[in-house]
Amino acid sequence: MSFQNPVFIPGPTNMPEAVRQACYMPTIDHRSPVFGKILHPCLEGVQKVLKSDSARIFIFPSTGTGGWETALTNALSAGDGVLAARNGMFSHRWIDMCQRHGLDVTIVETPWGHGLPADRYEEILRADTGHRIKAVLATHNETATGVRSDIAAVRRALDAAGHPAMLFVDGVSSIGSMDFRFDEWGVDVAVTGSQKGFMLPAGLAIVGFSDKAMAAVETTTLPRTFFDIRDMAKGYAANAFPYTPPVGLMNGLKLSLDMLLSEGLENVFARHHRIAEGVRRAVGAWGLDLCAASPDLYSDSVSAIRTPEGFNATDIVTRAANEYGMAFGVGLGEVAGKVFRIGHLGSLTDAMMLSGLGVAEMVMVDLGLEVRLGSGVAAAQDYYRHGSGKTNKAAA
Amino acid sequence: MSFQNPVFIPGPTNMPEAVRQACYMPTIDHRSPVFGKILHPCLEGVQKVLKSDSARIFIFPSTGTGGWETALTNALSAGDGVLAARNGMFSHRWIDMCQRHGLDVTIVETPWGHGLPADRYEEILRADTGHRIKAVLATHNETATGVRSDIAAVRRALDAAGHPAMLFVDGVSSIGSMDFRFDEWGVDVAVTGSQKGFMLPAGLAIVGFSDKAMAAVETTTLPRTFFDIRDMAKGYAANAFPYTPPVGLMNGLKLSLDMLLSEGLENVFARHHRIAEGVRRAVGAWGLDLCAASPDLYSDSVSAIRTPEGFNATDIVTRAANEYGMAFGVGLGEVAGKVFRIGHLGSLTDAMMLSGLGVAEMVMVDLGLEVRLGSGVAAAQDYYRHGSGKTNKAAA
Amino acid sequence: MSFQNPVFIPGPTNMPEAVRQACYMPTIDHRSPVFGKILHPCLEGVQKVLKSDSARIFIFPSTGTGGWETALTNALSAGDGVLAARNGMFSHRWIDMCQRHGLDVTIVETPWGHGLPADRYEEILRADTGHRIKAVLATHNETATGVRSDIAAVRRALDAAGHPAMLFVDGVSSIGSMDFRFDEWGVDVAVTGSQKGFMLPAGLAIVGFSDKAMAAVETTTLPRTFFDIRDMAKGYAANAFPYTPPVGLMNGLKLSLDMLLSEGLENVFARHHRIAEGVRRAVGAWGLDLCAASPDLYSDSVSAIRTPEGFNATDIVTRAANEYGMAFGVGLGEVAGKVFRIGHLGSLTDAMMLSGLGVAEMVMVDLGLEVRLGSGVAAAQDYYRHGSGKTNKAAA
Amino acid sequence: MSFQNPVFIPGPTNMPEAVRQACYMPTIDHRSPVFGKILHPCLEGVQKVLKSDSARIFIFPSTGTGGWETALTNALSAGDGVLAARNGMFSHRWIDMCQRHGLDVTIVETPWGHGLPADRYEEILRADTGHRIKAVLATHNETATGVRSDIAAVRRALDAAGHPAMLFVDGVSSIGSMDFRFDEWGVDVAVTGSQKGFMLPAGLAIVGFSDKAMAAVETTTLPRTFFDIRDMAKGYAANAFPYTPPVGLMNGLKLSLDMLLSEGLENVFARHHRIAEGVRRAVGAWGLDLCAASPDLYSDSVSAIRTPEGFNATDIVTRAANEYGMAFGVGLGEVAGKVFRIGHLGSLTDAMMLSGLGVAEMVMVDLGLEVRLGSGVAAAQDYYRHGSGKTNKAAA
Repeated sequence: MSFQNPVFIPGPTNMPEAVRQACYMPTIDHRSPVFGKILHPCLEGVQKVLKSDSARIFIFPSTGTGGWETALTNALSAGDGVLAARNGMFSHRWIDMCQRHGLDVTIVETPWGHGLPADRYEEILRADTGHRIKAVLATHNETATGVRSDIAAVRRALDAAGHPAMLFVDGVSSIGSMDFRFDEWGVDVAVTGSQKGFMLPAGLAIVGFSDKAMAAVETTTLPRTFFDIRDMAKGYAANAFPYTPPVGLMNGLKLSLDMLLSEGLENVFARHHRIAEGVRRAVGAWGLDLCAASPDLYSDSVSAIRTPEGFNATDIVTRAANEYGMAFGVGLGEVAGKVFRIGHLGSLTDAMMLSGLGVAEMVMVDLGLEVRLGSGVAAAQDYYRHGSGKTNKAAA
Repeated sequence: MSFQNPVFIPGPTNMPEAVRQACYMPTIDHRSPVFGKILHPCLEGVQKVLKSDSARIFIFPSTGTGGWETALTNALSAGDGVLAARNGMFSHRWIDMCQRHGLDVTIVETPWGHGLPADRYEEILRADTGHRIKAVLATHNETATGVRSDIAAVRRALDAAGHPAMLFVDGVSSIGSMDFRFDEWGVDVAVTGSQKGFMLPAGLAIVGFSDKAMAAVETTTLPRTFFDIRDMAKGYAANAFPYTPPVGLMNGLKLSLDMLLSEGLENVFARHHRIAEGVRRAVGAWGLDLCAASPDLYSDSVSAIRTPEGFNATDIVTRAANEYGMAFGVGLGEVAGKVFRIGHLGSLTDAMMLSGLGVAEMVMVDLGLEVRLGSGVAAAQDYYRHGSGKTNKAAA
Repeated sequence: MSFQNPVFIPGPTNMPEAVRQACYMPTIDHRSPVFGKILHPCLEGVQKVLKSDSARIFIFPSTGTGGWETALTNALSAGDGVLAARNGMFSHRWIDMCQRHGLDVTIVETPWGHGLPADRYEEILRADTGHRIKAVLATHNETATGVRSDIAAVRRALDAAGHPAMLFVDGVSSIGSMDFRFDEWGVDVAVTGSQKGFMLPAGLAIVGFSDKAMAAVETTTLPRTFFDIRDMAKGYAANAFPYTPPVGLMNGLKLSLDMLLSEGLENVFARHHRIAEGVRRAVGAWGLDLCAASPDLYSDSVSAIRTPEGFNATDIVTRAANEYGMAFGVGLGEVAGKVFRIGHLGSLTDAMMLSGLGVAEMVMVDLGLEVRLGSGVAAAQDYYRHGSGKTNKAAA
Repeated sequence: MSFQNPVFIPGPTNMPEAVRQACYMPTIDHRSPVFGKILHPCLEGVQKVLKSDSARIFIFPSTGTGGWETALTNALSAGDGVLAARNGMFSHRWIDMCQRHGLDVTIVETPWGHGLPADRYEEILRADTGHRIKAVLATHNETATGVRSDIAAVRRALDAAGHPAMLFVDGVSSIGSMDFRFDEWGVDVAVTGSQKGFMLPAGLAIVGFSDKAMAAVETTTLPRTFFDIRDMAKGYAANAFPYTPPVGLMNGLKLSLDMLLSEGLENVFARHHRIAEGVRRAVGAWGLDLCAASPDLYSDSVSAIRTPEGFNATDIVTRAANEYGMAFGVGLGEVAGKVFRIGHLGSLTDAMMLSGLGVAEMVMVDLGLEVRLGSGVAAAQDYYRHGSGKTNKAAA
């Protein structure tokens, strides 16, 4: 494997050298006090990244999908009502998981490329006078379409309807890359993973539970053991896990949290925005459109780019990999073949992004698209050069 | 953290440098064909380590506990009968998981330090004429007591009773270190993890399913998504996972499998036996007893050593860590404070083991036990020197 | 330190992950046979890269400068005549070293940016009827000016003059990146280092001696111990060094040689040429000139780019580092402030090169140069896309 | 290669994980300010380890042998008188180097196993009324014999004789492991390398020059370029080297200096003494003698152990490597076959040392020596347990 070029998939992301080294520490005794010095900074750091003072943080040796399952199986019981919009592959999968766990999902079908319909949520919640709906699912950033939804609006919908349902947010591809406000938005369960904004290998599900969600856990009945947060909480109280913890990955998480918090969350978000906006300028210069329906929905972690009718967007990804050794993301589900995706989150510089745009252009020209070589790169350069990006200083 | 001394906990084990480096790979696109070149050798290699021609192998970003849950939730339905013996902490935990998933467990209480009671299993199975029992659980190696049970005998019990229940075996601390015969023993589900015989960090649940267990999956009803082996099977067929795979760990597994199979499984087992027997000789020289009730039960991956009445065995572990920077295992559950454990599995040499025994002796003498310095080391040396261990050649 | 962007200095070059890992192996006993298995493949591999059947290869824990000193102190005596052209910083330094070792150097002053003047060499050699000149120095690739000279022409000059002087070639920034023909060109001593074409950290001087040069060593009188090739040869015969060898770096060299020879030297050279030509197209698109006086002199490992009169070229390097975290090379000596340099050798892809060109453009525009954003990138893309570069496949 | 067991050669030593990782950094621009942040802490840290306020420190990409050459070629001229004792292989080699550089060496032949004869030095210096002797060479720790000489006594000899010769000390296997007092002892040039007390790979020569030695450099005439400290000093003043610096190794040195100074030099020396004394107790228990003639000469970094008449000590080293994968040092020169050596310097714990002693015992018994298994280990345990070693706490 070459490993020379950065990857531009929307996760797992490029890993900083120091984070990789922290992950692959030699074996320690996970029952020794040393582990507590890794565990607690992780829990505290994640809380800060969530902008929460009180969220209980749980970390599982799993992935974001396991994080979803943690949310559902701990805070809900079979037959409980759940409200969710389906506007992309990842919201679709979470809904599917609900159904497989015997939850009764009210699905709001939403065009892919659109954001969560807070107004529809409000209507449905108002109508649910019996409070059959126990949880509202919200995918903060649809990785499949590059759409960031307005979670604050979903919260307002709940409040406006005066509905007591919990708010579960999938922040897998937003947390650590884009602003996330657990407390301010009244999130009850937030779910993420290690391999996106945290710049780590896949292997950790990271979740935050509000007090309300913690209370729900006491009476819910879905079976769970591996993902049981009460066992986990008991373990943490003794600097331990209920089973063998993924020590190295957590050591890496500790460092990545240090890096994010040292850089400053707002700076991290601004960096992601700057790099993303450069990509969007390039897309404009290519004469292409984003899958995201309007600028307020544009994701700062991933762009899904529509290719012209009749063109198979997946060919771009295949050719980039085979001919130029570079990884982009294919379209998934409804937009398979219609979009290709550029991930622009995690450990990335403007310079790295230019190489991604440069290769994308070569591939598109190779494949006969009406794109001018250098055009997208120039648009991005122009933005990177003039924007706040001007101070993209090398960290010392 | 010092990382200078090897660890002697019964997992996670010491990692070979090359395996750590393999885990430590940069990010690749897990949807590219490169991933298939990691995935399939892993599946094939695990099958070989299980000595099976047909077991379907599944690898989850999880731990052995997740492997147990995979076994239960895929192959059983709520209310199903399960037969299990409780003879240590890990069999206890698996039983607990069954109960939390609504399974109806017939528990054979067995003294800690004893093996699985195949004769009692047979009686119970004979009595279960209605075949209410769908699965027999068997912990191959009780990590808490250092007891290896006779799985072939459990199979004989099933056969003698003419009972169709499936046989689920926890091989977390045996597979890759001690002989395991999936096909010959008629195992239906075997469960292990990455952090023991495979010499990797924690983070992978590794399971094998027989054809019979695969068939059961089609009709079972316990809710599952993350651990659903059908989704996983579908993914594998496309060189993929149903979610983000733990690429680095699997790259490490690929290498560790290469190493184990190149060394030769029988040689790997002989090495573990040799090192373990040296430890047992040392224990004898110290005048102490193993927790395991009889020699046929002695585990080659971990020894639980009883300390004299009135002595807190945990003090040995604490002092070894604090004063000598060395990690041993504490007693768990019923034998907490009564035993300390020496893990002797994974990547280990005779020389490394001598350092563990040497430190254990210093600690015991420090704490006032009647142990002569050098006595256990000498007994181990004598065995290592004369035994098959004589050919402990440095690998080239 | 960020380490995110590739470097574009003309060495040390970007290191492949696997090579870095090979370098930082744990400690082994360098007196054990294991070392021989590292040493001899290194010697054999370097010979192949030099395209020689008979050159004796010596590797010192040093740098290219130490390699020069090895050449001089082993093969010459104080007072010996040496013929050398000064056409850049590195030829200048080698001449300086000669003088400091008491050699009598006939210097052919040559404009920086020009190649070695084989015709002048021939004249001087013809005139040296007494054969006072014992060695002709030739800098194959002047790293300061990006000029590759014609070593075959220098050999022809020697032959035409019928002069018995030895031919010493500095191949520090050419060997492993551009064609080098030790035997065909009648080279007597070739000098290189680890940190350029071999993609390793600095730390090794690598030299090849012809039979004629080996014979000279028997009678020369310059004092030497550390760089004495006879001690080294004696050591090698016993799988050893006369002092502690740099085992890790040599382990890395063994791997980098494997990589170069597996790729195929001609493919390696073609790859360097392709990437270099893309850079040259970009330079042309920017309306700038190379320091190298004519196309036949263009180096495939480094381009020195002249900036307009009155502009301080060093500002480009400073701003690229400070604002964009990217490293280019400054001008040295006579061309300090007049050129900046882009290194394009070692482990590099077209995509990486585009990021370097993209940043260079942003910096030049920032600094007010008349360069259009994207122009150079587009020129390079056009070449990378259409040229032989079309098959820049990701290595599996 | 297995890499599982620690090495017990007297250097290169076992490397701490973090130090290896620091060495393993990606390429940076060595002409950027980043390099200054590596260089200067190295220079300052080495000064502290030398216990000097004013020594000028120079670091070369080379080895200790290059450090010797740096001392000689910078501070002496051909024909200069040098006084040296030959009491082992390394003093022998330094003398040889002097002779090859045209120095006029007065050799005091001293039995191997004995220390430097300060009284003979004094006699000779007193007799040298013309001050023909410009430098006195002193090997602080003879790695071949495990003899640490009294440098303060050599200084007293110089002072007593009122002789102005410079004092050059080879501290390759002492500096960083045993007390070294550059200022107090009036050392003029101290020489060491990276691969012993500094726990790094081989590849750095590290030297310190007194003001007096710096002054000498101005008028000396031995040819030098690579090892010229004036070029180096000029480079350092500009945060640079006169050629490509070994950045990674220096980054490792920076960390190893941090580690040594954080632990506290006196603690580092006490640790080395404790581990060494345990080895000596073991040697006593085996009924063997050290090569070092008396306890005041015992080295804390290496023990050379005499084996009985008629026994080939090298067999121990060979068998340990082949059968047990463990590296000890062979006897060199006059004591080849008569001694084997145990290196006990660098990154080492009591536990690691016990594994070395345990293997040495097995090998000696295998080879028929009258050694009781466990005897040496027990003697060391007894010392490690009771000595100051009791607080060999695991670093957090």
